[in-house]
Amino acid sequence: MFIAMNRFRIARGSEPVFEALWRKRDSYLDEVPGFVEFRLLCGPEDEEATLYASHTIWESRQAFEDWTESESFKKAHAQARAPKGTYLDHPRFEGFEVVL
Amino acid sequence: MFIAMNRFRIARGSEPVFEALWRKRDSYLDEVPGFVEFRLLCGPEDEEATLYASHTIWESRQAFEDWTESESFKKAHAQARAPKGTYLDHPRFEGFEVVL
Repeated sequence: MFIAMNRFRIARGSEPVFEALWRKRDSYLDEVPGFVEFRLLCGPEDEEATLYASHTIWESRQAFEDWTESESFKKAHAQARAPKGTYLDHPRFEGFEVVL
Repeated sequence: MFIAMNRFRIARGSEPVFEALWRKRDSYLDEVPGFVEFRLLCGPEDEEATLYASHTIWESRQAFEDWTESESFKKAHAQARAPKGTYLDHPRFEGFEVVL
């Protein structure tokens, strides 16, 4: 199993806008081969930002990579974006293999 | 749901030792109220280290906090430790609430 994780630093006060975007967004993931599960997580905050993480669980790294080159990926990323100032940094991607 | 995540920077070459410790370790988590699932994940590497993350999923943040004050927690943390030089930093803890 493979977990594709993105970490987002969201400006304090913009959390409701950010969460609403994810709630409304159609990820089209259910139609994608090898997709297992999606979670949006809210983590620790500091003075400037709240850390969010998205976890998308795949049967394999290959299934994830195939998805990034698919029409479903393009459709999911062609939707409404957050207003300027919502993100304090670029999202930070990390891919993890499940060991145990 | 709550995810307790620890991030570990493991010296290049020490990955097998680190993974073997987790495989052998008895976490005693199955006996703990509110415990849902445990995963050890292997992430990206740089010149010095490989990033690992442990994900422990709980029914609530409270269940996690109760565990950290329990006998099960003490037992799980009284076991064999990795040799000096395995960890390049202290483990970094982050707690996440599941939003979606």
